[in-house]
Amino acid sequence: MITTRLDLARIRAARSDIDPIFLNTPLYQCDALGRELGCTVSIKLETANPVRSFKARGTELVANLLAGQGRTAAVCASAGNLGQALGWSGRRRGLDVTVVASRAAPAVKLDRIRALGAELELVDGDFEAARERAADISLQRGIRLVQDSLDIETCEGAATIGLELADAGSSFDTVLIALGGGAIATGVGYALKTLSPDVEVICVQPLGAPAMTHSWRRRRVVTTDSTDTIADGVAGRFPIPEVLDDLLAVADDAVLVQESSIVAGLRLLLEQAGLVVEPSAALGVAAVLEDRDRFAGRHVATIICGSNVDLDAYHRWIRT
Amino acid sequence: MITTRLDLARIRAARSDIDPIFLNTPLYQCDALGRELGCTVSIKLETANPVRSFKARGTELVANLLAGQGRTAAVCASAGNLGQALGWSGRRRGLDVTVVASRAAPAVKLDRIRALGAELELVDGDFEAARERAADISLQRGIRLVQDSLDIETCEGAATIGLELADAGSSFDTVLIALGGGAIATGVGYALKTLSPDVEVICVQPLGAPAMTHSWRRRRVVTTDSTDTIADGVAGRFPIPEVLDDLLAVADDAVLVQESSIVAGLRLLLEQAGLVVEPSAALGVAAVLEDRDRFAGRHVATIICGSNVDLDAYHRWIRT
Repeated sequence: MITTRLDLARIRAARSDIDPIFLNTPLYQCDALGRELGCTVSIKLETANPVRSFKARGTELVANLLAGQGRTAAVCASAGNLGQALGWSGRRRGLDVTVVASRAAPAVKLDRIRALGAELELVDGDFEAARERAADISLQRGIRLVQDSLDIETCEGAATIGLELADAGSSFDTVLIALGGGAIATGVGYALKTLSPDVEVICVQPLGAPAMTHSWRRRRVVTTDSTDTIADGVAGRFPIPEVLDDLLAVADDAVLVQESSIVAGLRLLLEQAGLVVEPSAALGVAAVLEDRDRFAGRHVATIICGSNVDLDAYHRWIRT
Repeated sequence: MITTRLDLARIRAARSDIDPIFLNTPLYQCDALGRELGCTVSIKLETANPVRSFKARGTELVANLLAGQGRTAAVCASAGNLGQALGWSGRRRGLDVTVVASRAAPAVKLDRIRALGAELELVDGDFEAARERAADISLQRGIRLVQDSLDIETCEGAATIGLELADAGSSFDTVLIALGGGAIATGVGYALKTLSPDVEVICVQPLGAPAMTHSWRRRRVVTTDSTDTIADGVAGRFPIPEVLDDLLAVADDAVLVQESSIVAGLRLLLEQAGLVVEPSAALGVAAVLEDRDRFAGRHVATIICGSNVDLDAYHRWIRT
């Protein structure tokens, strides 16, 4: 019995509150990629939707809840994808959405947040600075602060991916999950460990943004002073204690990968799978590249969590 | 009442003979692309599967039928995607699959056909030469010749895309479909015209490979001496009379687009939708680009039919 803040019955029920456009995403074996990696690789593709990431699974739950409570506004800090997702979910329910992001976030993510009609406020500093400012706005305006990974809806929304993986009945040995704040890792991990306990749950984080992995290893919150990674979507410094507790209950391992492996992963996903993805979505492939023996001959599922990437930067990365 | 060789009840039943991995593909609105094109654009994505094109919807039916009849082998001519799909469907059912293709087909398509365990025979000349050779092999070996667009399974398999579009309940004004041999155009067209007769069915073909469009316009088979297009997947010269008859019954229009528009379509799909696709899959966007007034403010669905593209050529195209 896995005990976390998440609840399987709620996760199952959540599916009916999420717009179907975000559910039942493609899950398919990619032989070409598998040949390159020396294992069987299944792709769970979370990018073929209006916000090009998995985040709307969670914001659909949050926005539903808020609309049901008669709320009219919400604010969140975002590295870029949560803001788009909340913008999309909020717009459909008449919510005024404010997103706080770092000025350093990819322009393409910021543009798409604005295009969804959300109010975008930029701050100097990184994602953690955006989190502080979003909390201030919430207090000042008396509106709901949506906190990625802390708010149970963001974790349980992401957990519906785990339901789909478990329901697929495929015999995965391992699922590789990008680790940032922890919503997708704890969500998918909880669903899998509850329904398919034999499937190994491995979280993957960049060496350049290792706070949650260090925390998981030491079983206590470890923060870092800075981050240095192209994987902007997972670049936090302050793990949330409640989320770490959940992660400790569901993750079999947490590994750190180098930037060069993330880039190699981006390149392989393009060349072998025809997928343009953001760096966070290449973490799983990077983990296999760094430890081929560990995964040799196994069946690995990797969640392609987002494709909001600045194309100029992308082409620079994959050409080097 | 639309009368073609296709049958709605059979198409509905076909869904249970097709591996679910190829069904219920993503259908979502892409606002960024819509803004560029001046209309509402929905994407029907047929590339997130093991063969990266829609063709397996048809080969699943063919291979099922053959396996049920106790056959052990089949041969087809292919521009590259049918061969992969038949290779995949055949392998799963223990069929020996032979694919005949033009030596000029994209290397990436040929490599993937081989990787699926199919026997690949290359011929000089174009797709029509491959068709002749495949017919010879069928006679010599006494094995089933799978003929794309002529064989009803290839059309009715593709028609399941039309079912999904009709069932989505979205209020499309228009569906844009790549036109080559005609399987996807007649299939999707038939399903839509039967279930959602108000949806306009527009077929799009390259100016450099216009045989079927000329045939549709003149209501009789018109052949051409050569083709000249980067859209290798739709570059046939000899329309099949039965398929033309079906197309005449379901298509509201057939339009021809320039190569430069196909390239612009490829670029927009990458930049605005994050999708790397093969040229045939960009025909719908190319059609909008060439006649913006016609589509202004309308809701257009475009089927992204394949993503098997040589990346070197792709990058050359989109950079020019």
